Amino acid sequence: MKIGIIGYGNLGRGVEIAVNAAPDMELAAVFTRRDPKSVSIISKDVPVVNVSEVADWKDKIDVMVICGGSATDLPVQTPEYAKLFNVIDSFDTHARIPEHFANVDKAAKESGHVGLISCGWDPGLFSLNRVYANAILPDGKDYTFWGKGVSQGHSDAVRRIEGVKNAKQYTIPVEAALEAVRNGENPELTTRDKHTREVFVVAKEGADKALIEKQIKEMPNYFDEYNTTVHFIDEDEFNKNHSGMAHGGFVFRSGRTGVNKENNHIIEYSLKLDSNPEFTTSVLVAYARAVKRMYDEGQRGCKTVLDVPPTYLSEKSDEELRNHLL
Amino acid sequence: MKIGIIGYGNLGRGVEIAVNAAPDMELAAVFTRRDPKSVSIISKDVPVVNVSEVADWKDKIDVMVICGGSATDLPVQTPEYAKLFNVIDSFDTHARIPEHFANVDKAAKESGHVGLISCGWDPGLFSLNRVYANAILPDGKDYTFWGKGVSQGHSDAVRRIEGVKNAKQYTIPVEAALEAVRNGENPELTTRDKHTREVFVVAKEGADKALIEKQIKEMPNYFDEYNTTVHFIDEDEFNKNHSGMAHGGFVFRSGRTGVNKENNHIIEYSLKLDSNPEFTTSVLVAYARAVKRMYDEGQRGCKTVLDVPPTYLSEKSDEELRNHLL
Repeated sequence: MKIGIIGYGNLGRGVEIAVNAAPDMELAAVFTRRDPKSVSIISKDVPVVNVSEVADWKDKIDVMVICGGSATDLPVQTPEYAKLFNVIDSFDTHARIPEHFANVDKAAKESGHVGLISCGWDPGLFSLNRVYANAILPDGKDYTFWGKGVSQGHSDAVRRIEGVKNAKQYTIPVEAALEAVRNGENPELTTRDKHTREVFVVAKEGADKALIEKQIKEMPNYFDEYNTTVHFIDEDEFNKNHSGMAHGGFVFRSGRTGVNKENNHIIEYSLKLDSNPEFTTSVLVAYARAVKRMYDEGQRGCKTVLDVPPTYLSEKSDEELRNHLL
Repeated sequence: MKIGIIGYGNLGRGVEIAVNAAPDMELAAVFTRRDPKSVSIISKDVPVVNVSEVADWKDKIDVMVICGGSATDLPVQTPEYAKLFNVIDSFDTHARIPEHFANVDKAAKESGHVGLISCGWDPGLFSLNRVYANAILPDGKDYTFWGKGVSQGHSDAVRRIEGVKNAKQYTIPVEAALEAVRNGENPELTTRDKHTREVFVVAKEGADKALIEKQIKEMPNYFDEYNTTVHFIDEDEFNKNHSGMAHGGFVFRSGRTGVNKENNHIIEYSLKLDSNPEFTTSVLVAYARAVKRMYDEGQRGCKTVLDVPPTYLSEKSDEELRNHLL
């Protein structure tokens, strides 16, 4: 099957790596808003094309993976390209999923395509685990923890403070809260109980560090409801120790069964990822396979990971999966 | 939707509890090989019927949950009852799944029903996690650990030794092995490295305890490849501390991505269950809902958990799941 990529940043590059590792896939082309000559991809024999020419590729691509940002790119791009291709994206603004779903569904149904949205690990694999676990243990509580990992939004917010040259913010789950959930204590946890925030800041010369720290810790929504630690470091240390893209998290369901609800059960799902973008795109590429299979069997419109039978993600036959992994 | 239960032991009782907790389900009848008058169920207004009369219920039950044993009951029962009903079972003899699948598929297709086999947590939820994780991280290693929990087969084997009055065998994952996997060390683990076995024995009066211990530890297949600890206890302690049905386990996938495979990712799924039968039947009942939905949309034949879209397990609408759990 032939895969296309629109947008070549960390995600686009991750899709390229995952497609190259898949025996049943071939990268057809990479599309960019930039001058194609300025974009250097890993696969030297694959064309890089300006996105203005994407319509020429209408019948040459089975699934287009759209690697834009959720804030402004995907709400426009995914419905737009669903008119020409089967598409998949990693749209992750939870609150706007219903609206994005409706737009992609309309475009995909009118043009006769499949569009799968909000694919990755949260939304994505974490969502799957929430749905499975809620259906199995209807009487229970959900807990989701993120980290340790970088929050891009929080890092950006710190960088906008006057006197800050560079900054990275880590979200860290509180170990005691994880343990309480794991032990079946079914705790009530506030925002402050679940995560701490740790910020590494490179200050501009002469900046008031005490003021920067105060502004970070009191920033509404971003930091004021958390216990936050701020470290000032120099640029060398920043570049050396804080350029990684590790992330992860935990999803729990703790639920009770029994005539008198006397038995407790804990379902725990966790991820520990060296590279957030490469793992996210590994999920995207597995689901791109499912998109083609759904399209081939006549399905149309917008889908999410919740609609996809697990076998559809694998390049192995249903029989092989049943015999070896069931 | 109307649910029937065939067989009323720990599993049948667990199905009854889970059906009573489901807002969209009703228990229609319990079928037994015993004298129905001798079987006391929780729901006093639900009929208990001899299984010889099951054909009279042909059009009164949406999904029949078959609660027999995997060794001799289910290979006969599931294909047999698939001629009359949509059926679901927890067949867990991994090596015989292809044969059982073929038999149920033939019966269900000929009679126009859906039969879902091998549903529970392993096979079942653990299988799902193996399939998802293998598709997402094709270059990696799988690890499955079981326990701490009781192995029925190993307990039975010990009880067959002369001089043993009662016995319980616990399978325990080795903490150091779990940690090595969790740390991304991708270890090669032998059988002995992964699990230890702990046996609690009530000996008959005058029995040779040293000989019993030796016979346990050297028993081929069951114990000889493991580090085993044997404890002799009295009947009171046995009844007080070893009548529980707790179980659990862990599924890991550790896989690499990157141009030079430089990034490692760990996916971990674990269960900690106070009651193995009640959790297993909670899974069965959620999938019984999916069986009806697949039947209603015209699917026929044998299915497994790998074929079922996650939304089908929930009594909530697809839209509600998308808006709140995605």
